[in-house]
Amino acid sequence: MAGRVLAERRAGHDVVVVASAMAGETDRLLGLARQVCGDPNRREADVLAATGEQVTVALLSMAIQDLGGEAVSLLGHQVRVVTDGVHARAHIRRVEPDRILEVIGRGQVAVVAGFQGIDEVGNVTTLGRGGSDTSAVAVAAALGAQSCEIFTDVDGVYTADPGICKNARRIARISHEEMLELAGGGAKVLQFRSVEFAMRHGVRIHVRSSFDDGPGTWVVPESECSEQPMVSGVAIERNEAQVTLVGVPDRSGVAAEIFRPLAQAGIVVDMIVQNAATGGSTDLTFTVARADLGRAVSLVRGPAEVAGARRVQSDENIAKVSVAGLGMRSHAGVAQRMFELLAAESINLVMISTSEIKISCVVEASQGERAVRALHDGFGLGNPS
Amino acid sequence: MAGRVLAERRAGHDVVVVASAMAGETDRLLGLARQVCGDPNRREADVLAATGEQVTVALLSMAIQDLGGEAVSLLGHQVRVVTDGVHARAHIRRVEPDRILEVIGRGQVAVVAGFQGIDEVGNVTTLGRGGSDTSAVAVAAALGAQSCEIFTDVDGVYTADPGICKNARRIARISHEEMLELAGGGAKVLQFRSVEFAMRHGVRIHVRSSFDDGPGTWVVPESECSEQPMVSGVAIERNEAQVTLVGVPDRSGVAAEIFRPLAQAGIVVDMIVQNAATGGSTDLTFTVARADLGRAVSLVRGPAEVAGARRVQSDENIAKVSVAGLGMRSHAGVAQRMFELLAAESINLVMISTSEIKISCVVEASQGERAVRALHDGFGLGNPS
Repeated sequence: MAGRVLAERRAGHDVVVVASAMAGETDRLLGLARQVCGDPNRREADVLAATGEQVTVALLSMAIQDLGGEAVSLLGHQVRVVTDGVHARAHIRRVEPDRILEVIGRGQVAVVAGFQGIDEVGNVTTLGRGGSDTSAVAVAAALGAQSCEIFTDVDGVYTADPGICKNARRIARISHEEMLELAGGGAKVLQFRSVEFAMRHGVRIHVRSSFDDGPGTWVVPESECSEQPMVSGVAIERNEAQVTLVGVPDRSGVAAEIFRPLAQAGIVVDMIVQNAATGGSTDLTFTVARADLGRAVSLVRGPAEVAGARRVQSDENIAKVSVAGLGMRSHAGVAQRMFELLAAESINLVMISTSEIKISCVVEASQGERAVRALHDGFGLGNPS
Repeated sequence: MAGRVLAERRAGHDVVVVASAMAGETDRLLGLARQVCGDPNRREADVLAATGEQVTVALLSMAIQDLGGEAVSLLGHQVRVVTDGVHARAHIRRVEPDRILEVIGRGQVAVVAGFQGIDEVGNVTTLGRGGSDTSAVAVAAALGAQSCEIFTDVDGVYTADPGICKNARRIARISHEEMLELAGGGAKVLQFRSVEFAMRHGVRIHVRSSFDDGPGTWVVPESECSEQPMVSGVAIERNEAQVTLVGVPDRSGVAAEIFRPLAQAGIVVDMIVQNAATGGSTDLTFTVARADLGRAVSLVRGPAEVAGARRVQSDENIAKVSVAGLGMRSHAGVAQRMFELLAAESINLVMISTSEIKISCVVEASQGERAVRALHDGFGLGNPS
């Protein structure tokens, strides 16, 4: 990595590198925490986890210097990357560019610790899993960088998971909006929040392989996308579970009461579907991360009872399959085509949810991969075989 | 450790804990550095090494919370512990007490990262090996603490190394001055600079075992020492080497020229002995840490030649044996007694150096331990057998 950084520097570019922790390090650190206590305090877990990136920025800076370059590491409190105070999943409020500009102004490479920040009073915070992507985008935005290159273990964004669709194609250029829908749909190449941040600030992301010099995928503002395919890619998310409140009386304010405790507990609700009420009651179904299912069920049980729901049931055995594409805005019938393709495979749809440029269906877990292949082929996304 | 901290807190004391890294961690981190480069940049090595204490303050805070206490970790930049900018061996300029006072004012335990600080512009610095002792003393001084308890792997300061003198006695109370002379003489219980700092700021240190509740050793201002023994303890330092410039012309300014490059290179010179000049030339001998010997010899070779010295020779095969005691100030004859005791054992003295309350002799390495035993017994320091 030091060699690649120096090559860019020697090509005349100002370079700021954002480093994440070494593979497995964050887990190792949190493992130490579990050795000393059952439920690690979140503030202290952030102090602990932030050392992972502190180690890599120091090592990468040394490695750059060893190759004859000049580099200066910068930690969250030095940059400063200022976040809110929500430990373990902090949001970046601002990245102060002065110290970085000072370093690159001297011709040195700035090596910034990803994943970490400080809150307004100087407590160490972290951004959550994959947060280094977001750090990189935020730094790029603060500096008005030409682009933010994200080096990862795959060589780009694909029309579908190549492990599922043998003929999946690398996408050369995709809009932030589409990438966001695919990331939310389970395409794990980039952290969702990093794409969101990039879209809001117009940061051009170049997804590249850490291991070779391939062309990768550009994730860019919609204005730079001349092509607007109806469907750009298919994604599958297998880490969700669904909760259904059966027979909820149809009166106003019920949904607010049901979801308030989840929001307060910081549980992210993904899809929400409510059937049109018949006979004065309705079924309300939503999905959460599988890891949150137990808490979610126990949190909604009380309000569900108060609201008069007949029962609360849950199902972990689901997969969410999504297709996304800018062209959906102007082309009707994509949803209809999706339903037909799945029906032809006898795949039953448990939930359906649509946004402007994405359609997601929840299906039985065992049918997920088959659904992806049917959609990938049906929308003609693969390489010609 | 969390249990001991909480016991103090529950006894009604405000408690500030200074934590060092886990055993072996600093070496592990610097090993990582050597994997990426031959000569790690010192600024970055400090960023790297400082993670060791960041890990332990987080873990200790969690452990205290797990036992039902309240604790808040504070890193060097949060406290703030402000040092000069000399990486890897920074000196503390000041410890700002406000943030710690705020934490203990809320009844919480403040868990401060030892060994680390920041310079005036916010770069991470470290204090050098054993620096956490100095951090603890500096924090105690800034807060005006009743005492600074230093938990270590021995149960106190002894009249001599019990591994050398079977009948060595734990010292219940010793002055900063004596402790300083013994530490400089190779008694490794406390880091030299921590004792120096404690003496300057009147901090009472209580050296205690991490493993039991024994009485330990109090290191206190001289005014609190009613007893003033001629000799409080015997120490041996085996990690020095000596350099001799033979036949240095006897003119003013020579010593300054010889030692300037060593000072500039940050090499600490311990003993310096110059014989009275005979025939217009003299021999100049000094000792340095064994690890610095190679650099020291090559640094003085140039100025030695310029000064007209006949040759530069060195010897690693030495040990420095010291006796220290406040009583030396008022009792003549301690040095004479020391020389007699060593002569009775046929131990040859290579160098002699005296301070107000200490006498050090350099002897051949192989005779070092025998010298310690002779002095320990001769000055009656041991337990009555």
